[in-house]
Amino acid sequence: MNPPKTDARRHHDPEVRGFASDNYAGAHPEVLAALALANGGHQVSYGEDDYTAHLQQVMRSHFGASAEAFPVFNGTGANVVALQALTDRWGAVICAEGAHINVDEGGAPERMGGLKLLTVPTPDGKLTPELIDRQAWGWDDEHRAMPQVVSIAQNTELGTVYTPDEIRAICEHAHARGMKVHLDGARIANAAASLNVPMRAFTNAVGVDVLSFGGTKNGALFGEAVVVLNQDAVSHMKHLRKLSMQLASKMRFVSVQLEALLARDLWLRNARHANEMAQRLAEGVRAVHGVEILYPVQANAVFARLPHDVSERLQKRYRFYFWDEAAGDVRWMCSFDTTDDDVDGFVAALKEEMARQ
Amino acid sequence: MNPPKTDARRHHDPEVRGFASDNYAGAHPEVLAALALANGGHQVSYGEDDYTAHLQQVMRSHFGASAEAFPVFNGTGANVVALQALTDRWGAVICAEGAHINVDEGGAPERMGGLKLLTVPTPDGKLTPELIDRQAWGWDDEHRAMPQVVSIAQNTELGTVYTPDEIRAICEHAHARGMKVHLDGARIANAAASLNVPMRAFTNAVGVDVLSFGGTKNGALFGEAVVVLNQDAVSHMKHLRKLSMQLASKMRFVSVQLEALLARDLWLRNARHANEMAQRLAEGVRAVHGVEILYPVQANAVFARLPHDVSERLQKRYRFYFWDEAAGDVRWMCSFDTTDDDVDGFVAALKEEMARQ
Amino acid sequence: MNPPKTDARRHHDPEVRGFASDNYAGAHPEVLAALALANGGHQVSYGEDDYTAHLQQVMRSHFGASAEAFPVFNGTGANVVALQALTDRWGAVICAEGAHINVDEGGAPERMGGLKLLTVPTPDGKLTPELIDRQAWGWDDEHRAMPQVVSIAQNTELGTVYTPDEIRAICEHAHARGMKVHLDGARIANAAASLNVPMRAFTNAVGVDVLSFGGTKNGALFGEAVVVLNQDAVSHMKHLRKLSMQLASKMRFVSVQLEALLARDLWLRNARHANEMAQRLAEGVRAVHGVEILYPVQANAVFARLPHDVSERLQKRYRFYFWDEAAGDVRWMCSFDTTDDDVDGFVAALKEEMARQ
Amino acid sequence: MNPPKTDARRHHDPEVRGFASDNYAGAHPEVLAALALANGGHQVSYGEDDYTAHLQQVMRSHFGASAEAFPVFNGTGANVVALQALTDRWGAVICAEGAHINVDEGGAPERMGGLKLLTVPTPDGKLTPELIDRQAWGWDDEHRAMPQVVSIAQNTELGTVYTPDEIRAICEHAHARGMKVHLDGARIANAAASLNVPMRAFTNAVGVDVLSFGGTKNGALFGEAVVVLNQDAVSHMKHLRKLSMQLASKMRFVSVQLEALLARDLWLRNARHANEMAQRLAEGVRAVHGVEILYPVQANAVFARLPHDVSERLQKRYRFYFWDEAAGDVRWMCSFDTTDDDVDGFVAALKEEMARQ
Repeated sequence: MNPPKTDARRHHDPEVRGFASDNYAGAHPEVLAALALANGGHQVSYGEDDYTAHLQQVMRSHFGASAEAFPVFNGTGANVVALQALTDRWGAVICAEGAHINVDEGGAPERMGGLKLLTVPTPDGKLTPELIDRQAWGWDDEHRAMPQVVSIAQNTELGTVYTPDEIRAICEHAHARGMKVHLDGARIANAAASLNVPMRAFTNAVGVDVLSFGGTKNGALFGEAVVVLNQDAVSHMKHLRKLSMQLASKMRFVSVQLEALLARDLWLRNARHANEMAQRLAEGVRAVHGVEILYPVQANAVFARLPHDVSERLQKRYRFYFWDEAAGDVRWMCSFDTTDDDVDGFVAALKEEMARQ
Repeated sequence: MNPPKTDARRHHDPEVRGFASDNYAGAHPEVLAALALANGGHQVSYGEDDYTAHLQQVMRSHFGASAEAFPVFNGTGANVVALQALTDRWGAVICAEGAHINVDEGGAPERMGGLKLLTVPTPDGKLTPELIDRQAWGWDDEHRAMPQVVSIAQNTELGTVYTPDEIRAICEHAHARGMKVHLDGARIANAAASLNVPMRAFTNAVGVDVLSFGGTKNGALFGEAVVVLNQDAVSHMKHLRKLSMQLASKMRFVSVQLEALLARDLWLRNARHANEMAQRLAEGVRAVHGVEILYPVQANAVFARLPHDVSERLQKRYRFYFWDEAAGDVRWMCSFDTTDDDVDGFVAALKEEMARQ
Repeated sequence: MNPPKTDARRHHDPEVRGFASDNYAGAHPEVLAALALANGGHQVSYGEDDYTAHLQQVMRSHFGASAEAFPVFNGTGANVVALQALTDRWGAVICAEGAHINVDEGGAPERMGGLKLLTVPTPDGKLTPELIDRQAWGWDDEHRAMPQVVSIAQNTELGTVYTPDEIRAICEHAHARGMKVHLDGARIANAAASLNVPMRAFTNAVGVDVLSFGGTKNGALFGEAVVVLNQDAVSHMKHLRKLSMQLASKMRFVSVQLEALLARDLWLRNARHANEMAQRLAEGVRAVHGVEILYPVQANAVFARLPHDVSERLQKRYRFYFWDEAAGDVRWMCSFDTTDDDVDGFVAALKEEMARQ
Repeated sequence: MNPPKTDARRHHDPEVRGFASDNYAGAHPEVLAALALANGGHQVSYGEDDYTAHLQQVMRSHFGASAEAFPVFNGTGANVVALQALTDRWGAVICAEGAHINVDEGGAPERMGGLKLLTVPTPDGKLTPELIDRQAWGWDDEHRAMPQVVSIAQNTELGTVYTPDEIRAICEHAHARGMKVHLDGARIANAAASLNVPMRAFTNAVGVDVLSFGGTKNGALFGEAVVVLNQDAVSHMKHLRKLSMQLASKMRFVSVQLEALLARDLWLRNARHANEMAQRLAEGVRAVHGVEILYPVQANAVFARLPHDVSERLQKRYRFYFWDEAAGDVRWMCSFDTTDDDVDGFVAALKEEMARQ
């Protein structure tokens, strides 16, 4: 199409895609189009607009009648707002050692939220009641930050997906010990697509109290939401969002993106596609001798181990990241806009580079 | 135009506008169009994209060769990141008692940044060297939070505008005492339009160290930037932005909006228009007997005092806020999309309601 | 007496006293002797010792059956622990602009407690319901830090003392608005001595929820306590004290000092004496032409205005501080160990220096 | 001796001692006596007194000419002040997973200091360059809290002691990577006694930048100090101490205790004695069949594994704590006042209870 008339210019090639991250992708065209719908005229700012009101209905259709969504800017913000809401000043959060909140948020939970994270090593990114118990103790001990929340990610940082029963077991275990459960759903749509169940099946249906809903990696320009499922677990969310610098003034532009994703099935189309591309990629990779796939490919990520120099050569052709450079581990992410050709081209390139060994 | 095809629907009347806030407005169509330019393909996330790189050039064209922009989500975020960057753990910020950072950010500077604000009452929202001196002392006294920054807003919360010389005097005064100067530019474009000077004339040209550039009220969907003018004043801005939960993953969509505003003259067109509408409004109001305009109308805000019941009746016809309800003070804001007809209709309504007294 | 055998040596002249601060004084000999009582043998650390248990009884005899004391190290610690206990993460504290928590604690409330202070100028250091109302509003407004506590100091930083009725009015006013009341009792004993009432008469009897009890200025080596009067107002005080770095391991040595002060009447003897010395001093000063006493002398402080050069010459003979150097205001503090001769000598010196004008 | 005349009374049996913690002990009589020396007369508060001045000389005699001591109240306070001083707002601290700062300070480092701890499991409580490297990476990555400090404890929480060479290797490793080294010396005297070297031999002589000096467990009533060895590593310590609520007003009473310990050899006598008692205890325990000693007994702690019910019966006779109750691990601490008879009686009791199996 003709470039729109604007003071800005196009600076990039819209045909180039890689496997570095699902946030390297842009926005889905329907999301972009939705912004135009919400534009024009005046709408009350800071969340009192009609789009945010409507989003509540949409969220309730997914997460049940008690669900309430608080749109925020990004995933770190969603997580820090949610975890502050679920903890007292003396509270701590049990999470996997490799959790995004522990390793990838610049210490925001500690610095901004005053949160202590109690971490547990995991084989595959997933907590279990047994792993939780390594940190779930000492509630009466003032010398210990009090475990008040278990935070899990669905799917995990390693692309693995909890079954609903696994999350149910975690919630029951946590609740029995007076703890709440937070679910970091930066890629919740991918998990639902992978499990082929509604999102509620592994959230409110099994006891999750609050979740961070991820729109950005699902095809939004930006925009996440803290979704409260258990209203008794939190209070004054609006105050917490504001003081955490996560309150958008023109919130209609966040909410309409989430509506665009969630009102019908765009969220699922996007997630399914990304997952399918990861399956296609995994399949292709499995046929390449000398490349090992590291974890079950359950969502839109493929982790693999291959010779370091192969990775380096391949990175000159396609963007992707080392996950554990010393071990030769890499991460390949698919997104809603990954194409069959992208995957096939990448697998072919991988084969070529492996053959040059 | 036809509504775009999307899973989302239009929920509002795009023809309704009021005078409540410049963030009740939507986005300028050119800004919206720019998003489409930046969409498609893969771009490195977290600010390593081509749009953010290009934004640096655009910012330098406005703020000089040493300027560096760090796009963030919102104004609270911009201010808290900037003020953290300019202070040590023991630092404090001198500001007007009515400053946005003191009264309108939910305590975010204190809670998220650990910042102590040292406030000074002002007659018109503007600090002066003399007013600053009421708090600028006690640097060696460990019992006192150390004044390290003077933060001013241009324009102020009261719609008043500093002259370049006034800001120069503040900067010289602050620097002579070892303090840095932060400028909260949530409406910096309106100030430049009002003064009819480039933005640099009252920022880097007169000694401001770091500013918060406001895109949202200027016509963006969202998006501000911390703009560092004095590189010696700060360090590790990227780390501070991240840990402050203000790092956008798909940053191209923030940067391209700022580019759309700043690359040519959209920022100025929008600001001039809003200011002109405020002048038109003030002119109309001055002709209404019994309504007092409270501060010099120098930007896009008109503060007025009128009978309380008149305001209440008027609010049923047009959205706007009380500023000091007990005193009968109200605030009327114009924005880039305010029309002559909006203003004239509002003035006519005001006259009618006053006549019903 | 002979200096005790120890590896340490005496480095100061125990006969030199001034009027700089009641914390320039040492400890009362009975407090020092009490330490020896509590020494020897093993006692459970961190507050589970017999002295801390006994202190609870002593505190209840003063502050009623619901009182519970949490010994801490110092006044800043007591205040920050108490105010954290009384606020949510979104809470704010209304206090006098000149309150110690606002001007003399290095920003500890903001930095350590994440507390926003909402300050009000006062003529004499005392809040009133009317003054409180300048900040007591906007509970539903997420843009505003939520007023949850009114903090008053008894006596105030200016040496003035609230009557029980004045505090009752403040408590009723605060409680009617859903706020709690904290009393900073760094010099609570002086206030009780001044009013000639039990401490309960202006604390639990009139509705104060939590107070900071000051032992240090009353004759302890160190040691304060957060005293909870309304158990419903707080929770998990032990956790808050610990995470605020205010938990003494050998707490018996804090508690026994407070017991030494409070078990019988040492607290009152010390406070009465200090107050009487301030009265003697004020009387003497009033007879000196050209020296103005600034506030009612109701406790152990005398604020005066006199020629700057007189103050400077006088400071060479007796230690004391300027309060507002530009105005020529000084503060003279009396303590439990101030003697008649100290006062008379000081007044004589003041006369001499005034005569040299 | 006769109980001193005081309003307080003795509530405990000074002849009862156990093995629960070195902070169950009281104060050494020479320390108590030193308080009387420092008492009387007026001394400038907040650290400008003659005892704190003299303490600087004493500290320099131990830690070299560049050492500067900042007395604080307790160990948590010392550590949080020190670590804040050594980090930027974006900094993180590498420490052992079992470090006191990670597991026993109620989250104070995170909540009060905004510090992120990067933890490493250790076999014996000791870090090594190799272990440090598990967290020492990613300085340029804003998503990661930046490793700026390595914090070690000497001796460790497990009663093990680093050799000077081990600490030198850690310091060289840290410094080569731009990191500073903090030493938590809550039991530094025990380590020096164990190694039979001056404290400087494993601190300033090998590159430690800042240490927390522990007086409390060495025989003080309370009182620790942040000791800065490398002045270039920190700034504005007084401000940090104050805002961290660790500034004692009558500081002479902290400083004179540290002087009493350090001016001659009381610190060493106390530490040696406690260590010898631990050796005597370990020797006795080794002769008891069925009780396993878990770590090298290098200071004043003995960790052992024995049948759970034996521990429970023994705890009715002597106070001590489980360390890992599930594993049957216990910790027995000796202190400066532990006697040969205490140890022998305890070993006899252990034998009896084991025999009842």
